[in-house]
Amino acid sequence: MTSSDRRFRVGLLGHGTVGSAFAELLPRHAERIELITGLRPELAGVVTRSDGSFEEVLERSDLIVELIGGVEPARDYLLRAMRAGRHVVTANKQLLSRHGEELWETARAEAVQLRFEGAVAGVIPIIRVLQESLAGATVERVHGIVNGTTNFILTEMARMGMTFEQALAEAQRMGYAEADPAEDVDGRDAAAKMAILARLAFDTPVRLDQVRYEGIEHVQPDDLEYAHELGLELKLIGTAERIGDGLSVRVHPAFLYPGHPLATVSGPFNAVTVESEAITEITMSGPGAGGPQTASAVLGDVISAMIPPASTPPTSQVLEILHDVVSAFYLHLEVADQPGVLAQVAQVLASHQVSVKSVVQRGLGDQARLVMVVHPVLESRFQAAIATIGGLDVLRAPPRAIRVLEEEFG
Amino acid sequence: MTSSDRRFRVGLLGHGTVGSAFAELLPRHAERIELITGLRPELAGVVTRSDGSFEEVLERSDLIVELIGGVEPARDYLLRAMRAGRHVVTANKQLLSRHGEELWETARAEAVQLRFEGAVAGVIPIIRVLQESLAGATVERVHGIVNGTTNFILTEMARMGMTFEQALAEAQRMGYAEADPAEDVDGRDAAAKMAILARLAFDTPVRLDQVRYEGIEHVQPDDLEYAHELGLELKLIGTAERIGDGLSVRVHPAFLYPGHPLATVSGPFNAVTVESEAITEITMSGPGAGGPQTASAVLGDVISAMIPPASTPPTSQVLEILHDVVSAFYLHLEVADQPGVLAQVAQVLASHQVSVKSVVQRGLGDQARLVMVVHPVLESRFQAAIATIGGLDVLRAPPRAIRVLEEEFG
Repeated sequence: MTSSDRRFRVGLLGHGTVGSAFAELLPRHAERIELITGLRPELAGVVTRSDGSFEEVLERSDLIVELIGGVEPARDYLLRAMRAGRHVVTANKQLLSRHGEELWETARAEAVQLRFEGAVAGVIPIIRVLQESLAGATVERVHGIVNGTTNFILTEMARMGMTFEQALAEAQRMGYAEADPAEDVDGRDAAAKMAILARLAFDTPVRLDQVRYEGIEHVQPDDLEYAHELGLELKLIGTAERIGDGLSVRVHPAFLYPGHPLATVSGPFNAVTVESEAITEITMSGPGAGGPQTASAVLGDVISAMIPPASTPPTSQVLEILHDVVSAFYLHLEVADQPGVLAQVAQVLASHQVSVKSVVQRGLGDQARLVMVVHPVLESRFQAAIATIGGLDVLRAPPRAIRVLEEEFG
Repeated sequence: MTSSDRRFRVGLLGHGTVGSAFAELLPRHAERIELITGLRPELAGVVTRSDGSFEEVLERSDLIVELIGGVEPARDYLLRAMRAGRHVVTANKQLLSRHGEELWETARAEAVQLRFEGAVAGVIPIIRVLQESLAGATVERVHGIVNGTTNFILTEMARMGMTFEQALAEAQRMGYAEADPAEDVDGRDAAAKMAILARLAFDTPVRLDQVRYEGIEHVQPDDLEYAHELGLELKLIGTAERIGDGLSVRVHPAFLYPGHPLATVSGPFNAVTVESEAITEITMSGPGAGGPQTASAVLGDVISAMIPPASTPPTSQVLEILHDVVSAFYLHLEVADQPGVLAQVAQVLASHQVSVKSVVQRGLGDQARLVMVVHPVLESRFQAAIATIGGLDVLRAPPRAIRVLEEEFG
């Protein structure tokens, strides 16, 4: 580290989807990162398979980010960077699942950081959680949906009744599957990720060739139909679990009952559940690897390598604290059961520009219940409307209102 | 830090539910922690409100864990420990939501670590994720179910049709609510946690008295009935969101549509969703604060404070990698539609000790489809059974099998 000023120089290896997203992200967040760390990060140079000198970029870098992918020259570059005393960050699951022990041993020997959050499950911070939060817990089992391509395909097959081939074509059209999808759909990609997670969760050597895997190529649309009938959801599940004194690490399609924490993870999302007696279980979900998401995980690693841990920086802005915000509402009214009541209520709402989304009305002798959901509206405006409604002669009890979170999620 | 050997001495303040769980957990994991960190942690002494000398325990500790709760003397002890150069770990949300800036400023000035994962959302590592993983992302919104007591009560009201009072009594009986539940049910506890999350997510000062909160005391059973009819789930939601140049931080009951990532979080569980353009959204869920869970989060913080970050320790055990494991299976058979086929198949399964859980049979002209789920069985035994079934005359296509994850989750 030859930096004599407040700069922190990052050498970037690789300029594909993730590499270019990272190169774009770093300068955009440089100012905020300087606030957090006291150092201003900047790109020291880029090396690709065909362009640039690794030696030169290494020489002028404080940290190396490896996003070339594959085994060589990525392995060689990372080893040389660590032996030169540089922290390294990588998102290379193939490399770590094959040569992890050599790389981790080198990091320990050279007392440098080797971070790899981007290698497994996109933005879900599962590496950090296994290495730090759960370092004091005994993990019993890890279940994961760690391949977004196959989860998207299975979701489409279930939702639209598509065949595997149709859903794969749709995934390619949407950019969720590569032109050559073999490693994703046959389970190899998930197997590499599970090898890494098993190694971290159980502190035991796991070779990639010890992970059994099956893919989703043979799943038929009617399997999903019957599953629906039986109340099941189909996912490509990676499992690493302690059984007695042994460990099983495997990837295969599996049906989940509806209460399972992974059953609702759909589309290109990833999720991981960690089970341990001390903590019961933690589940984390988020978008699977895309360029910007993986780049964001890589940047999180870079920042962690820059700072002494667990610093809470001084506040950097003073946002006004707001109290009147927009929300949808559920409104429950006990009213006289007589003609014109709904019209009267609707009139008050309309005069306050409160718009009704759905209504349920029920008679109860000489009373009726009017339950409705209204579209998002500024809270003060809604409160003014129900104050007026509360004063109507036809009301039999004070109005009751509860907020409704309106967003529709994927 | 006067430690001259391989010991790492932890001074413990407080010996209530979490404190005693931590005192029990630390020695149980000491060996594993020594493997990870190179240092063997041990309890240097315990101080309670009535017993022990803080000065003496501080003198012989490398790190102070504060689990006394409340503002004083917790604040005074933490400040004195940091000024004496000790790292500190706390799970005290009331203190941090009221005096966080003073404590964080002191930690920065003294260059010590102040960690507080246990203060918010039990074992969910939301503090670490906001401070490190997402340090390079611009957070737009945080939604959380951060109080397990109220989530349990709302789940019981919805599931059993109970009144608030009945469900609260049930929560107290199960140990999910305290004898005086006021701070939980009126939203104050959640407000303190949201003040901390908002401070970290938006780098802006947030005072506890700027957080608006409403509780769940006024929710009626029929609100939940109507909600069910409208397809909604009711939760006590904490929100911190950027709106223009302002920030809204609030806690109130809110209905969620079924696709919302927090809609399926039930019972005493907590969950937090963080939204940001770069990452779309991450959701993390797990058990809310209980003694052992919070103690486990505190221990994770202690370990983090002991180690240079992101070390992957050498493997500490060699578990045998297993390939034949127990699983439930879905089995899909295309068979001749003639009498006795089901009996024949059932006979083969029984002879391999494979037991059927559910069956769907459908005629299709002169063929029939037999779809079943079998109870968990050793995989080799199930494969032997379907090899035999595949050879039956009545089979019209090769059997198809897919694993079923059997666990029922709460």
